[in-house]
Amino acid sequence: MLIALATDFGSTGPYMGQMRAVLATAAPGVAVIDLFSDLPAFEPKLAAYALAAHLGPLPPDSVVIGVVDPGVGGERRAVALRVDGRWLVGPDNGLFAPLVRRGLTTEAWTLACPPQASASFHGRDVFAPAAGALARGDRSGLVAAIDPASLDRPDWPDDLPHIVYIDSYGNAMTGLRASKYPGTGVIKVGERPIKRARTFGDVAPGSAFFYTNANGLLEIAVSRGRADQRLGLQLGSPVLVQAAALENDPAP
Amino acid sequence: MLIALATDFGSTGPYMGQMRAVLATAAPGVAVIDLFSDLPAFEPKLAAYALAAHLGPLPPDSVVIGVVDPGVGGERRAVALRVDGRWLVGPDNGLFAPLVRRGLTTEAWTLACPPQASASFHGRDVFAPAAGALARGDRSGLVAAIDPASLDRPDWPDDLPHIVYIDSYGNAMTGLRASKYPGTGVIKVGERPIKRARTFGDVAPGSAFFYTNANGLLEIAVSRGRADQRLGLQLGSPVLVQAAALENDPAP
Amino acid sequence: MLIALATDFGSTGPYMGQMRAVLATAAPGVAVIDLFSDLPAFEPKLAAYALAAHLGPLPPDSVVIGVVDPGVGGERRAVALRVDGRWLVGPDNGLFAPLVRRGLTTEAWTLACPPQASASFHGRDVFAPAAGALARGDRSGLVAAIDPASLDRPDWPDDLPHIVYIDSYGNAMTGLRASKYPGTGVIKVGERPIKRARTFGDVAPGSAFFYTNANGLLEIAVSRGRADQRLGLQLGSPVLVQAAALENDPAP
Repeated sequence: MLIALATDFGSTGPYMGQMRAVLATAAPGVAVIDLFSDLPAFEPKLAAYALAAHLGPLPPDSVVIGVVDPGVGGERRAVALRVDGRWLVGPDNGLFAPLVRRGLTTEAWTLACPPQASASFHGRDVFAPAAGALARGDRSGLVAAIDPASLDRPDWPDDLPHIVYIDSYGNAMTGLRASKYPGTGVIKVGERPIKRARTFGDVAPGSAFFYTNANGLLEIAVSRGRADQRLGLQLGSPVLVQAAALENDPAP
Repeated sequence: MLIALATDFGSTGPYMGQMRAVLATAAPGVAVIDLFSDLPAFEPKLAAYALAAHLGPLPPDSVVIGVVDPGVGGERRAVALRVDGRWLVGPDNGLFAPLVRRGLTTEAWTLACPPQASASFHGRDVFAPAAGALARGDRSGLVAAIDPASLDRPDWPDDLPHIVYIDSYGNAMTGLRASKYPGTGVIKVGERPIKRARTFGDVAPGSAFFYTNANGLLEIAVSRGRADQRLGLQLGSPVLVQAAALENDPAP
Repeated sequence: MLIALATDFGSTGPYMGQMRAVLATAAPGVAVIDLFSDLPAFEPKLAAYALAAHLGPLPPDSVVIGVVDPGVGGERRAVALRVDGRWLVGPDNGLFAPLVRRGLTTEAWTLACPPQASASFHGRDVFAPAAGALARGDRSGLVAAIDPASLDRPDWPDDLPHIVYIDSYGNAMTGLRASKYPGTGVIKVGERPIKRARTFGDVAPGSAFFYTNANGLLEIAVSRGRADQRLGLQLGSPVLVQAAALENDPAP
């Protein structure tokens, strides 16, 4: 049992701390970790593919609070879902769409919005109390069961050929699961082709490459350098997987 | 029971971690959260109004360690105070002045400075041990009761018409409690008037507005943009509340 | 008992969180702190002298996970060592060399690399599980005892006359222990001489000085300013201790 926070709040300000204060009261003694405090701000679609790839190390009965929520205070639903045993709570804006689509067993509910909730900080006022209750085994905050498929976004692809996260080293993760592109030997960023390698140590310092990262995504990196700056990559930058490479490159 | 750290140390370096190491020994098993690691550096006055607004979600018996302490190693007193049941420890430099003034029941004490304390890191060497002891119910480190009013700063206003905190999105919090300015419809930043809105979702993307934030402060924001950059706001920037607006604008 | 993370992963991304998720499973209930998430990236030598100076506040039976590991996935060994009762796990790339040299009693072992470990994230896949096991008292992951001296780097000095860490205020720590330079009154940065002071409060705002910091290192600072920007200091910048000052300056 563990509660994981995955937000775009930033690591420094009071927001993560206030959520932790609520959780310390709502679920005393339960470990709380920051999984992300820097998911792509205001970009639930990019954040969705980043988040879905990083849940593996969490215990199977974890509760994940996902908050990338530019529509807070508006009409979007607040929801809880259970995917293969793991709870997730957050806004219904696509943030959980890849998880719903990939899950084997999924259930979903709408969440109550407490009358005293602020208009701008549902992470603290709606989602943290709901997550704390679920961590205690209390489902009384689940208002109504809904079709989990309603949390999917049918027009989104299974894998997103864009940069979905840039880490502190400047490594740029795509929304592409490596398992779906086993033979790919070249990724194109604009007109620039990038070759595959196994890991950093196999590449000369300063060289750009892509590889299967530790969370199973194709990631563009520069050995001992910043791929984002070197290659002009930003959140949302498109990447092109070269199908032709399938003929020439052996699977890694 | 919970210990909250509110400092200007930054989120990355060893200082927060060393304080947590001291607390893990001094108050084993007590939850410790970072409420702020980026209070305005070297600016106890700005930090004081930011801190005072953010304690609401903490359990009422929490212990707060506040450290914005440019005078560390000098003559300023180290103090502990109890405001409406909540403990606070830190330097006597105004950081707790708004809390003292707003509190219903306040008590205060000077703290001992352990002889082995460093000259530059009282957060670790004075305040964390004191907070850990108070969290255990041990008051032996309280040296002498003092008049809580001596921790106030009589020349400071009840509400500060300046930017006291800028969050990771670029939203700029004023030191003005919305409850004290219920009818205000316009805030001026330099010559620029900013209008009130309920929240982000009610404003067109890219538009500047101010609103009552989730901690009860008037805050200047830009929907899906950075208010600090757009409006040239910095920590300490003055803002002007337009009294005339009282006539024209209904209370929100 | 406490597990401390000391890495160059940055404070925001998913890496620290995934390590914490592994530790929550491997060593339930053990406190985990971030000691550093911003050790000098890709620079085990600088990081080694910074890390060695900051362990003092940790309980003596702590487990420290040190990860500055540009050679991850390559040939370097994964190791565990015990120095004066404290466990450390991480890569054999010099990161623990000063600790081995300064320790009174040292033991060392190689660590197993689980077959399912990723090629790029040994912090999560090798070092966190090993640390969690050691925190539980389980030594079954220690593969073979090795000579601790093999973790030293004989050509590295006892104290490093370079900037090894710059904190969020812009203060620049050297790798020089103040106890080894008791009479030093002047440090040179390039051609610029910097004088010693006791602490920030003893210096006029805006003035550069050096002092014995709270962790026993000589540190270059500017009172209420950024020493890194003012003096053009970067990670790795050399500093020169003026031996001549020994004659003129009394020990502090």
